[in-house]
Amino acid sequence: MNTESETLFEIIRFVDLAGVLANAILGGVAARTARLDIVGFVVLAIMSGLGGGMIRDTLLQQGTPAALLDPAYLICAILGGVIAYFVTFNGRWTRRVLLLLDALAVGCWSAVGAQKALEAGLGWLPAILLGMITAVGGGMVRDIMLLKVPTIFGGNTLYATSALLASTEMVILSKLGFVAIGTGVAILSGAALSLLAKRYGWILPTGYALRIPKPILLLNPRAWRQRRLDARNARNGVNPDDPGVGV
Amino acid sequence: MNTESETLFEIIRFVDLAGVLANAILGGVAARTARLDIVGFVVLAIMSGLGGGMIRDTLLQQGTPAALLDPAYLICAILGGVIAYFVTFNGRWTRRVLLLLDALAVGCWSAVGAQKALEAGLGWLPAILLGMITAVGGGMVRDIMLLKVPTIFGGNTLYATSALLASTEMVILSKLGFVAIGTGVAILSGAALSLLAKRYGWILPTGYALRIPKPILLLNPRAWRQRRLDARNARNGVNPDDPGVGV
Amino acid sequence: MNTESETLFEIIRFVDLAGVLANAILGGVAARTARLDIVGFVVLAIMSGLGGGMIRDTLLQQGTPAALLDPAYLICAILGGVIAYFVTFNGRWTRRVLLLLDALAVGCWSAVGAQKALEAGLGWLPAILLGMITAVGGGMVRDIMLLKVPTIFGGNTLYATSALLASTEMVILSKLGFVAIGTGVAILSGAALSLLAKRYGWILPTGYALRIPKPILLLNPRAWRQRRLDARNARNGVNPDDPGVGV
Repeated sequence: MNTESETLFEIIRFVDLAGVLANAILGGVAARTARLDIVGFVVLAIMSGLGGGMIRDTLLQQGTPAALLDPAYLICAILGGVIAYFVTFNGRWTRRVLLLLDALAVGCWSAVGAQKALEAGLGWLPAILLGMITAVGGGMVRDIMLLKVPTIFGGNTLYATSALLASTEMVILSKLGFVAIGTGVAILSGAALSLLAKRYGWILPTGYALRIPKPILLLNPRAWRQRRLDARNARNGVNPDDPGVGV
Repeated sequence: MNTESETLFEIIRFVDLAGVLANAILGGVAARTARLDIVGFVVLAIMSGLGGGMIRDTLLQQGTPAALLDPAYLICAILGGVIAYFVTFNGRWTRRVLLLLDALAVGCWSAVGAQKALEAGLGWLPAILLGMITAVGGGMVRDIMLLKVPTIFGGNTLYATSALLASTEMVILSKLGFVAIGTGVAILSGAALSLLAKRYGWILPTGYALRIPKPILLLNPRAWRQRRLDARNARNGVNPDDPGVGV
Repeated sequence: MNTESETLFEIIRFVDLAGVLANAILGGVAARTARLDIVGFVVLAIMSGLGGGMIRDTLLQQGTPAALLDPAYLICAILGGVIAYFVTFNGRWTRRVLLLLDALAVGCWSAVGAQKALEAGLGWLPAILLGMITAVGGGMVRDIMLLKVPTIFGGNTLYATSALLASTEMVILSKLGFVAIGTGVAILSGAALSLLAKRYGWILPTGYALRIPKPILLLNPRAWRQRRLDARNARNGVNPDDPGVGV
C-alpha cells in the first residue's frame, strides 16, 4: 500500500507538472499571437501555468503559494514560455499533445485543489469551487491579460464543466475515504469529458427565458378596478383580450 | 440592549445575503447577455455576489474568506445564478426589486467591510478603502470578465460614491462607539444616494484642466536671455506677444 | 555604517513614495482619458500606485499589505489622484518628471519586492518574480480596468525587462550580502534601461518560428511504407520530391 501511494503521488506530480508545462506553452502561444517579446512570453506562461494554483492558495490563506515554494513549478512554467518562444505549435500533432496534456491537467488540478481545500477544513461546496478555480484560473488570467473573453465563458468546450465534474467526484470520493482513487477518477473523467466535448462539439444550453408575472398587489386600486372590469366584460360576453376594449 | 443588537445582527445578515442574491442575479443577467451556459451563469454569479468580500478578506489576511467558510454565502450566490438562468429580469418591477436590493447591499457591504477592517486594527483610511472594495469589487470582477469597463468607472451612477459615503459614515460612527447606528445609517444613506443618483441622473464633474506653468530655471541661459529680450522690448514699446518679433 | 544605512533607508523610502505618487498621477492621467469623476480618479490612482505591492504582499502572506498599514502610501496615492484631477500633464517637462519618477520606481520597487521575498524565505527565482510583480503589477491592474492591453505587454518600452534586470541584480547582490548596494544598483540600472529604451526605441525580438518535425512513429505502417517507397525511388533515380510521384 505504501509503495502504491508513493507511485500514485509520483503520477500526480508528473501530471501536475506536465499540466503546468502544457498550460505555460498555451500562454506562450497566446503571447505569439499578440506579438510579445521573450519577457512577455515568460510572464504569460507563468500566469497561464501557475495562476490557478496561486489564486487557490491566496484564497485558502494557508501560507505562501506552492507555486512559489516548490521551484519545479516556476521552472516548468518558464521552460514552457521559452519553448513557445522558439517553436510554433501550429502542427496537428503538436497541438494534439498540448490538448491532451491540458485535458489531463484539468482533472488533476481540480482534484488537487479540491483535496487541498478539504484538508484546510472547508466544506464540500467551497472545495468544489476551489477545485474549479485551480483548474480554470490560469487560463482565465491569461485571456483577460490579452483582453479576450476567457475561454471558459466561450460556452463551447465544457472546460469549466469538466473541472466541475472532476472536483465533484474528488470531493465525494475523498469524503468516502478514497483519496487516491478519487484523484485517478477525476483525472481520467475530466480529461475524457474535455476531449469528447471538443471532438464532438458538445455544449450546454444557454439560458431559458421564463418571465416572472407581475404580482397583482392586493392594495393596488388600479389592479382591482381592472379585475372588476374584466369580470363584467366576461359576463357581458366581451373578449377581454380584444384590443378594441380600452384596457 | 442584547435583544436589540441581536435584532440588528439579524437585519445585517438578511441585507447582506439579500445583497449576495441580488448581485448574483445581476451576474446571471450579464451571463445571459453573453449567451453563457449554466456553468457560466453560476461562475459569474459567484464572482459578482462574493467577489468583493473575497478580495477584502484576501487583503486583510485574517484567515480564509468568510464567503468560503459560511455556506449560506455560496448557496445564495449559486441560487442567484440558477434563478437568472431560468428567469429573465427584463420586466420593470423585477428590475426595480433587483436595483433596490443592490442599493441596500452597497451600504451594507461598505459598513461590514469597513467595520471588519477596523476590527483587524487598520486605520480609518484603509478601512474606508476596504469598505469600498467590499461594495464594488464583485461587480468590478464581473464586468472585467466580460470585457466591459466596470460600471463604477461609468461615471453616471455614483455607485462608488455611495460606497465611499457609507464607508466614511461607518468609520466615523464606529470610532465614536456607535457600531449599530453606523451600520443602519450606512445602509440607508448608501441606498438613498445610489437610488436618487440613478433616478435623477446625478453625476460628479470630470477632471479639471489646470496646467503647470513651465518653471523658469534660474540657471538656464536661454531663459535669462529671453527675459532680457522681453525687458528691452518692453522698454522700447514693442509688444512681446507680437508674433512678428522672433521669440 | 549605521548612519549610512539610515541614509540609505531614507533614500529608499523617498524613492518608494515618489514612485507611488508618480504612478498614482499616471493612474489619474488614464482616468482623465476615460473621462471619470473624482472618485474614479482616486480609485485608479490607488490601483496604479499601490496595486503591485498589494499583489506581492497578498502572495507572500506575511500579514496585511504594507500599503494598508503605513498611512503614507495611501495618502501619496490619493494625493496623486487629486493632483491629476485638477492638473493636466500634457506639458513636455511635467511628462518628463513623471517618466523619470516612474523609471526610478521600477528599480526601487523591484529591489524592495525581491528583498522582501528573500526575507520571507523564498528562493531566488520566486524572489525575482515577486520583484517584477511589485514593479509592474499596479500599471497592469490600471490598464486592465480600462480595458487596455497592459503596457508591459506592449513590447516597445522594455518596462518589464527593466524590472527583470533590477530584480535579478538585487537578488544576486543581496545573496552576496550587499543589500544596500544592491538596492542602489537596482534603482539606477532599472531607471537607466527604462529611460534609454524609451529614448532610443529599444525592443526585444518577437517569437521565432521553428517547427517541431512530425516524428516518424516506429509502429506506423504508413510511415514505413513511405520510407521503403522513398528508398526504392532513390535507387531507381527518381526524385522523391517530384510532385509527379504519388507521395
